[in-house]
Amino acid sequence: MPQLSISRRTRSTPFTSRLSDAGVKAYTVYNHTLLATVFRSLEEDYHHLCSFVQVWDVSCERQIQIQGNDANKLVQWMTPRDISKAQSDQCFYLPLCDQHGKLMNDPVGIKIDEQTWWLSISDSDILLWAKGLAYGKDLDVTVTEPDVGPIAIQGPLADTLMARVFGDVVNDIRFFRYKRLPYQGHEFIVARSGWSKQGGYEVYIDDASLGQALWDELFEKGEDLHVGPGSPNLIERIESGLMSFGNDMDYRHTPLECGLDKFCNLDSDIDSMSLPALRAQRESGIEQRLVGIVAEDITHQPNTVQLMVDDQEVGEVTSHIMSAKYFAWIAFAFIDQKTLYDLSDSQKTLTIRTEQGDFEGRISELPFNFDQLGLTSKTA
Amino acid sequence: MPQLSISRRTRSTPFTSRLSDAGVKAYTVYNHTLLATVFRSLEEDYHHLCSFVQVWDVSCERQIQIQGNDANKLVQWMTPRDISKAQSDQCFYLPLCDQHGKLMNDPVGIKIDEQTWWLSISDSDILLWAKGLAYGKDLDVTVTEPDVGPIAIQGPLADTLMARVFGDVVNDIRFFRYKRLPYQGHEFIVARSGWSKQGGYEVYIDDASLGQALWDELFEKGEDLHVGPGSPNLIERIESGLMSFGNDMDYRHTPLECGLDKFCNLDSDIDSMSLPALRAQRESGIEQRLVGIVAEDITHQPNTVQLMVDDQEVGEVTSHIMSAKYFAWIAFAFIDQKTLYDLSDSQKTLTIRTEQGDFEGRISELPFNFDQLGLTSKTA
Ligand SMILES: Nc1nc2c(c(=O)[nH]1)N[C@@H](CNc1ccc(C(=O)N[C@@H](CCC(=O)O)C(=O)O)cc1)CN2
Ligand SMILES: Nc1nc2c(c(=O)[nH]1)N[C@@H](CNc1ccc(C(=O)N[C@@H](CCC(=O)O)C(=O)O)cc1)CN2
Repeated sequence: MPQLSISRRTRSTPFTSRLSDAGVKAYTVYNHTLLATVFRSLEEDYHHLCSFVQVWDVSCERQIQIQGNDANKLVQWMTPRDISKAQSDQCFYLPLCDQHGKLMNDPVGIKIDEQTWWLSISDSDILLWAKGLAYGKDLDVTVTEPDVGPIAIQGPLADTLMARVFGDVVNDIRFFRYKRLPYQGHEFIVARSGWSKQGGYEVYIDDASLGQALWDELFEKGEDLHVGPGSPNLIERIESGLMSFGNDMDYRHTPLECGLDKFCNLDSDIDSMSLPALRAQRESGIEQRLVGIVAEDITHQPNTVQLMVDDQEVGEVTSHIMSAKYFAWIAFAFIDQKTLYDLSDSQKTLTIRTEQGDFEGRISELPFNFDQLGLTSKTA
Repeated sequence: MPQLSISRRTRSTPFTSRLSDAGVKAYTVYNHTLLATVFRSLEEDYHHLCSFVQVWDVSCERQIQIQGNDANKLVQWMTPRDISKAQSDQCFYLPLCDQHGKLMNDPVGIKIDEQTWWLSISDSDILLWAKGLAYGKDLDVTVTEPDVGPIAIQGPLADTLMARVFGDVVNDIRFFRYKRLPYQGHEFIVARSGWSKQGGYEVYIDDASLGQALWDELFEKGEDLHVGPGSPNLIERIESGLMSFGNDMDYRHTPLECGLDKFCNLDSDIDSMSLPALRAQRESGIEQRLVGIVAEDITHQPNTVQLMVDDQEVGEVTSHIMSAKYFAWIAFAFIDQKTLYDLSDSQKTLTIRTEQGDFEGRISELPFNFDQLGLTSKTA
C-alpha cells in the first residue's frame, strides 16, 4: 500500500489524534475528510466488531443542512423517495437523483424539524448541487455544511455501552429514529443507525470538545466490554449487502439498477425531478443490475476478476472480499439483465476468471441470503 | 505517514500502473482520484523539477464540460472574470463564486469552441453545482464529466522534450493558449500551462491508450534530458505562490481576500452571480487577506505554528514549507487586515511561535518577491 499525504485539504476531524494514538494503520479520503479503514487488520477488526462494540469516527459523513420554508420542497425534489409523511424524529435512506434518474448520492436524511433537513452524505459534494438548484429555482432555503459529523457505536454490545453513557432511554430509540439526549448540558442527536448490520447508534457531534469528552467516556465505560476503535469494515459491509456510492454505484447508475426500488416511490404524487425518468425506465426495463455473487471454491482473495459466460465478459465486479464468516468469496457486480435471465433459465453457470484460474460463481439477490445459498457460518 | 487504502472510489488513472512501476511513494486524493505527491523525496523531486523535465499524471484535474447554446452564459454566471472576449484557443484561470462571492473552485477554463467550455477543476464537485444551476434556470446546456484529464510536462527542458514529440510547433504556443496537435492520427489539446513556475505544457488526454503511448514516448525521447516522473511539488508551488483550493482557501473565502482581484472584473458589464456581493465587499473592505510569510531564522520545518503579535494570535497558516532555494521557512497565511495595517505602520514584528521556540517573521505580498525580500538563491 502506498502512503497517504495528509494536508488541510484532506480534512482532519475532532478524533484524528485519538485514532492516531490508537494505531490506525490506513485511511481513505471521503468527502475531503480522513476516514480510517484499518486498525489491526481487516479480519481482526471484523471479528472484534461482530463480537463486542466499536466506536467509529465517521465525521466524513458530512451534514448538508437545508433550512427554510422550501426545505421539504428542495429535498423532495432531489429524491424519488416520498418524504411527505416524514416525522421530526426520523432518518431515511435517500437516493438522490438528477432529471435523468442518475444517482448523485445516497445520504441518510435526518428530518430535524419542519424547516430543516440534514443530508448525511456519501462521497460527493451535494452542498454544491443543492446550492445550484436552490439558487437556480430561487427557493427560500439556505444550504450550508455545518460542522457536524457522526460517530458510530456499532456491535452487539453497543446497547449496553450506550445505556451506560446516556441511560436506558437509548433502548427506546427505534431503527432509523432519533432522540435528542442530554450530555453535559448539551443535547446530542442520537439515532439507531450505522453502516453495519451489527446494530448500534450514531451520535451527531455538533460540538467538538463535548464530542471528544463523549468519545473518551465511551472508551472508559466500555473497557470491560472490550470497546475498541473501528471503522466501516469492508468484509462486514459486503456480507451485509451495504453498497458504497462511488464504489458500487455512481453517477452512471439509477437506483432501479442498484436494487434500490424500495426507496423510490414512483407511484406517489410527489414533485421530484427524477420521477419521469425513473418511471420511464421502469416501463422500458433496465439493462443491468447490481447483484451479489458467491464463489465457495475461491479460498484466497484474487487480484484480478472477470465475469464470464461462454467466454464472454458479462459484467463488472464493483467490490469483493473473502467472507470471514462463510469462508467464501463474495462480491457485488453489475451484470447485464439479459445474462441474468439466461442464467436463471438455462443450466449455464457464471465463471469467475482470476489470476488463480477459473471458478464457478452463483448469482444472489442483495442482501445475500446465506441460508438460502446453503452457506453456514464458520465462526463460533 | 499512514497508508492509503485504494478502492474504486479513489479512482485510478490511465497512468497509475506507470507511477507504481516508477516507485511512487505517496498519494493524495483529489477529485475522488489518485494524485501522486512524492517519488523520491519532496526535496529531490523539487531539484529534479527545477533542473530537468518531469511528466506529471494530473488526471485528477477533471474536466467538467459545459456544452450548448447557453454554455458561455453559464460559465460567465459562475465566474466574476470577464470571459466575453475569450477566443477558442485560450485558457483562463477562473475563480468560481456563489451569490455571496465565496469561492466554489478555481479551475483553468478552456474555451473549446463557441458552444463548449472545459473547466479543469480543483478539488470540489463543480459538476454538481453546474448541473444544479443549469437545471434550476432551465439553461440550454449539457453538463458532463468526460473522461479527460491532463498530463503535465514541466521543467526547464520541457520545451526541448515536447518539440521532439510534437515538433517545433509547440514553441509557438503562448502562455495559457493551446493548439490541437496531431498524434498518431488523433488530435490532442496541448496548452502552455501547468501548476509550477518552471515552464511547460499540459496535454489533455481524451484517449487512454494514446495517452499511454504518448507517456511512454516522452520517457523514451527524454532519456538524455533526465526526464522523470513527478507531480505538483509542495516546495515549488509555495515558492512560486501557487495557491491550492481546499488548502489555502475554500468555501469561506472570497477571491478578493485571496489576492485574486486581477481575475475579478468587477467593473465589467457581465452577468455573473457573484458580482453584486464582490462589489459590495470591495466597497466595505475585506477583513482578512492571504499573504506570504518568510522566516529566515527557522532552519527546520516546525510541526506547530502560531502567528502572534503582542501575544495575540492574528491569523492562520494555510501551507508552509522550508524553501529549498532560499533555506528559509515560507508560508501562506490568512491575517486580519487590521493586523496587516498595524504591522506596516508600526515597528512591530510578527512572531512565529513553534514547538522549537519563537522566530521573527516578515509579511510578503504573493507571489513572493525574494529579491525584494533580500533573499538569494542557495542553489547553483
Ligand atoms: N449518518 C450516516 N451517514 C452516512 C452513512 C451512514 O451509515 N450513516 N452511510 C453513507 C450512506 N449510505 C447508507 C447506506 C445504507 C444505509 C442503511 O443503513 N440502510 C439500511 C436501512 C435503510 C432504511 O430502511 O431506510 C438497510 O438495511 O439497507 C445507510 C447509509 C454515507 N452517509
Ligand atoms: N489543467 C489544469 N487544471 C488545474 C490546474 C492546473 O494547473 N492545470 N490547477 C488547479 C487550478 N488552480 C490553478 C492555479 C493557478 C494556475 C496558474 O497557472 N496561474 C498562473 C496564470 C493565471 C492566468 O494568467 O490566467 C499564475 O501566474 O498564477 C493554474 C491553475 C486545478 N486544475
